[in-house]
Amino acid sequence: MREVIPPGNLGRDKLDGATPVTTDALTRLTTLLETELLATNHAIVARMDSPVALIPQLAAHLVASGGKRLRPLLTLATARLCGYEGERQVSLAACVEFIHTATLLHDDVVDESVLRRGSASANAVFGNKASVLVGDFLFARAFQLMVDDGSLEVLRILSAASATIAEGEVLQLTTQNDLETTEQKYFDVIRGKTAALFAAACEVGGVIAERAAAECAALRSYGMDLGMAFQLVDDALDYSADQALLGKTIGDDFREGKLTYPVLLSIAAAEGEEAEFWTRTIGRGEQTETDLETALGFMRKIDATGRSLARADAFVTSACAALEIFPDSPMRQALMDVARYTTARRF
Amino acid sequence: MREVIPPGNLGRDKLDGATPVTTDALTRLTTLLETELLATNHAIVARMDSPVALIPQLAAHLVASGGKRLRPLLTLATARLCGYEGERQVSLAACVEFIHTATLLHDDVVDESVLRRGSASANAVFGNKASVLVGDFLFARAFQLMVDDGSLEVLRILSAASATIAEGEVLQLTTQNDLETTEQKYFDVIRGKTAALFAAACEVGGVIAERAAAECAALRSYGMDLGMAFQLVDDALDYSADQALLGKTIGDDFREGKLTYPVLLSIAAAEGEEAEFWTRTIGRGEQTETDLETALGFMRKIDATGRSLARADAFVTSACAALEIFPDSPMRQALMDVARYTTARRF
Repeated sequence: MREVIPPGNLGRDKLDGATPVTTDALTRLTTLLETELLATNHAIVARMDSPVALIPQLAAHLVASGGKRLRPLLTLATARLCGYEGERQVSLAACVEFIHTATLLHDDVVDESVLRRGSASANAVFGNKASVLVGDFLFARAFQLMVDDGSLEVLRILSAASATIAEGEVLQLTTQNDLETTEQKYFDVIRGKTAALFAAACEVGGVIAERAAAECAALRSYGMDLGMAFQLVDDALDYSADQALLGKTIGDDFREGKLTYPVLLSIAAAEGEEAEFWTRTIGRGEQTETDLETALGFMRKIDATGRSLARADAFVTSACAALEIFPDSPMRQALMDVARYTTARRF
Repeated sequence: MREVIPPGNLGRDKLDGATPVTTDALTRLTTLLETELLATNHAIVARMDSPVALIPQLAAHLVASGGKRLRPLLTLATARLCGYEGERQVSLAACVEFIHTATLLHDDVVDESVLRRGSASANAVFGNKASVLVGDFLFARAFQLMVDDGSLEVLRILSAASATIAEGEVLQLTTQNDLETTEQKYFDVIRGKTAALFAAACEVGGVIAERAAAECAALRSYGMDLGMAFQLVDDALDYSADQALLGKTIGDDFREGKLTYPVLLSIAAAEGEEAEFWTRTIGRGEQTETDLETALGFMRKIDATGRSLARADAFVTSACAALEIFPDSPMRQALMDVARYTTARRF
């Protein structure tokens, strides 16, 4: 990534200002992969079916509700980038989406989220237990898809990613409300809960194209850094997004006492009454109605959003650099643009 | 199974009377497989480790707390029955136990509606969130163990079982409080949530021994029928067990409005006020403190426990018959005894 916008311009003005030029990078990638994505959507609907009616009902609530399909797109895109000409990427992309959806369903239980993707969360509609069990079904079904595909290497990559995701989520749970959480631990959390699946989704594209280890590692590296940037931005948006565009309430992380990057920055800079504020609201989870506004004020003061985005941009730069191992092509360009887009998105 | 006790003797007298001769069948099987089971326990402890401390802590709460290890024992036993002389059964037995433990952890997750009815959750120590996520970790780790083992056939069997378990659990959820639930649907539920993993655990033993399809199918059939019997007895015990021996409170299924076999029998036999009782307590979930006692009275009247055990014994007979394909051996005898033991156990 050469033409990165300098950190000074990455603050709230970027989130609240005019639409950045890279905003539709994801749309362009989707268009490039239209045929494969359509096939993936068909595979998703076909393979989430079950004689137990509640399963497709509840799964459809998330899987078929028209999410961005970012993770499966990465598998489709990296397969294309590597010149793969078969059809295995389709069911493996579906498999990646199933794993992602399973974690969303389980995350709904965990976070007691009210809103997910702009509509009532599956949890709110169907209850905790159904979310857990349908998540389990999708997870198991993902492994059945991989077994049908027949590659032990793909199974190795995605089972390892699945274990790492769970570890990241548990680590996040143990850091909740813990003011001693270090930046290092925060990065461990997001590497596990988010970046690991991005990395695996990208690596799989290279593996099925039978590319050399160095190229598979480069794809993995791109996905990992992209995932880190993506989650950093997500965590920044939870304190700065346009609520209508984001499609979910802001301040969720604050209410749950999550030690995300903007909070870590704020705590590090806080003294006196401000430090006491964070100890009370995040450390002890004692919050009043006006606390979120106060928190937002403290964050603006230290440009927490801008600094989060600068951090994310470093990952974007690294992600794009990893792709330099591949010759220039429309797909390489599209993947680089998607990475740059992560720090420009507002939803 | 030739010397099966006739159904007439299988009622409460069996559950409340003297220790049946077959009670220690599981102990004998455990002794026969002592070395492999010890190795399995080591594998379990080694592979549930994680840098995220809460994972081994919580997993140990269940995995390492000295359960009966019935399911992994089945993998060890069937491998031995088939003359398998390698070591793969050890990690695959651990894998089966991980899948089982994951389902237990997820089964602990309760809906708020259930909590409101005053039912204490078994995961009170760690909470819903951690139970879900550590279950996910164990599930993913189980697949990593299978990938290390390297057999796509084993992966196929256990990923299919995992999907079927989730389907069974969801089906159970949708039949909860539904008085229209048929006996057929109840059997579908227990085949999914319980018998599928017993079947898979047994089949894997034959697969790693590279036995012919007919023998693998026989092992699968034995496991399936054993699992059906096991769950039928479990459901009967929830209304008739010695609470101290069972190690858990009885009446849990009643409070949760589960349509288990004893309830189905009772509803089918009920008229007038008795029918209204079931509609209120199970159908609408409106229960008072004395309702469980009343329910137990109705069940005694129709010998619900005896009839449940008779049904279970039919599955036991079928399970033992499936093993006739193998020549007689101490291990075949032990497996048949374990099957017979399921309808004699009181805890």
